[in-house]
Amino acid sequence: MAQLEAQDMAQAVIDRMADCKDPRFKEVMSALVRHAHAFAREVQLTPDEWMAGIQFLTATGKMCDEKRQEFILLSDTLGISMLVVAIDQARGAAALKDAPPDQRPTEATVQGPFFWPGAPQLELGADIGAGNPGEPAYYYGRVTDTAGRPIGNAVMDVWSGDGEGLYDMQKGPDAGMALRAQFRTDKDGNYRFWSIKPSYYPVPDDGPVGGMLHRMGRHPNRPGHMHMMLNAPGHERLITHIFVSDSPYLDSDAVFGVRDSLVVQFADHPPGKAPDGRVMSKPFSTAKYDFKLVPSAA
Amino acid sequence: MAQLEAQDMAQAVIDRMADCKDPRFKEVMSALVRHAHAFAREVQLTPDEWMAGIQFLTATGKMCDEKRQEFILLSDTLGISMLVVAIDQARGAAALKDAPPDQRPTEATVQGPFFWPGAPQLELGADIGAGNPGEPAYYYGRVTDTAGRPIGNAVMDVWSGDGEGLYDMQKGPDAGMALRAQFRTDKDGNYRFWSIKPSYYPVPDDGPVGGMLHRMGRHPNRPGHMHMMLNAPGHERLITHIFVSDSPYLDSDAVFGVRDSLVVQFADHPPGKAPDGRVMSKPFSTAKYDFKLVPSAA
Ligand SMILES: [Fe+2]
Ligand SMILES: [Fe+2]
Repeated sequence: MAQLEAQDMAQAVIDRMADCKDPRFKEVMSALVRHAHAFAREVQLTPDEWMAGIQFLTATGKMCDEKRQEFILLSDTLGISMLVVAIDQARGAAALKDAPPDQRPTEATVQGPFFWPGAPQLELGADIGAGNPGEPAYYYGRVTDTAGRPIGNAVMDVWSGDGEGLYDMQKGPDAGMALRAQFRTDKDGNYRFWSIKPSYYPVPDDGPVGGMLHRMGRHPNRPGHMHMMLNAPGHERLITHIFVSDSPYLDSDAVFGVRDSLVVQFADHPPGKAPDGRVMSKPFSTAKYDFKLVPSAA
Repeated sequence: MAQLEAQDMAQAVIDRMADCKDPRFKEVMSALVRHAHAFAREVQLTPDEWMAGIQFLTATGKMCDEKRQEFILLSDTLGISMLVVAIDQARGAAALKDAPPDQRPTEATVQGPFFWPGAPQLELGADIGAGNPGEPAYYYGRVTDTAGRPIGNAVMDVWSGDGEGLYDMQKGPDAGMALRAQFRTDKDGNYRFWSIKPSYYPVPDDGPVGGMLHRMGRHPNRPGHMHMMLNAPGHERLITHIFVSDSPYLDSDAVFGVRDSLVVQFADHPPGKAPDGRVMSKPFSTAKYDFKLVPSAA
């Protein structure tokens, strides 16, 4: 009850957790309080600005439903989601941080809102792009561990929007799955499949977060990318994308997910024979990317 | 698109605001991003913890309606509301900070959720406590500026819960106003009215914020207090409480609103004659408090 000056108030809140039984919760909340108070003091937050913040958070909560998670979008667009991914991967791969480049694990990036569990399990080489807008693209490469040993039978989920930037989930309540599948690597760790070359697309920008982006002078777009998730026994799960190297917005991904190591040159080909022997009647591209997984923590 | 390490990511987000047209918004959001990232890095926030945070914020938003503002409650219980009040008052009263104690302005505190505009305008000395649970209490004192000059005709709103800790607004949809009024000081700046001696009470703790308090090992209670708001031409609005000095929880107000200078000794009296000449048939208390208002910024 001492006379509190602004700079002492965070500590008063932290001291109130003396009876907290959960040391990690206490640690996290103490840091949260310290940083939140430091923020308000640093900018000398006014009552009107504080109220605008309260109203923004309330509207963001109201926007959330089964299909829309506006708080994740807020976290994404403030770079916090990607930061948490980076922290998590650094934790898992701490021992590998100083490895030579060819032994570094593939970098992770954000999962995003469009993963839909239960996609069809298909044979390697299958085409999940046919019938969807977009130029055909052949994806192939190898999955190994960081020492270069092939990982056979790894489960690879892939998903993307179409060549116009739309995901199946955005095409109305009756639209079925499209442009997604689950594959398994062969015994040498190889994977291959056909889809389309994904387009850039905007994150949902008709809610409070869209208003924030607008006011920040930012666009809502993500560069074209193919989502990939790899699960293999004895290895850390990897959730990542490969990015299309000639896509717009590669330098300004609205969710800060781009990593140099994930940008892939999509090679353009005229109609003709593809690497897997398929004869294409129209232009197509090929994208080769090798994945390196980290052994699980013991 | 450079390879971003965790410590560089906040700056990447800030740099994205290069085209922001609102310098203050940019300043506030830049600081917010810097502190939010610093928080996540400091505690090495895990994906599961991050998701728990997303779910907490979403539930907090869902809890908000016309009657309940769970985000304000969150701000209150983390000491942020009181911090913003303190920053605001320090701004208005910067020149008076080093004034001698008898010329310091009355300290502000949180407004809380129970102000209800349009309370009855009553004559000085009126009794707004009759018919409500609680011991009668007589409130009186003087309103002056910081130089001690009386402020006549100042508008004083007062409101409180009853002697059992319940506000009128909490007594169901059909309950009318109770224990609130608007008075005007006389030409010498004096005010006086009867109400009850307010009890401690819990902030609403059946929502996400209540869950947080529980997990922090904290109680949800506020010590007994009478809300007061003073408006007078030529002076800064003052929103504050006076706190009951023998109330429980004075050392652990759930919203960190207590200031030493706002704690008032409620003098106990046996049945008999009150200071205003009224003859009381049961015990009552008296609370004297003088308010000092800051001249408006030019
Ligand atoms: Fe995506
Ligand atoms: Fe109150």
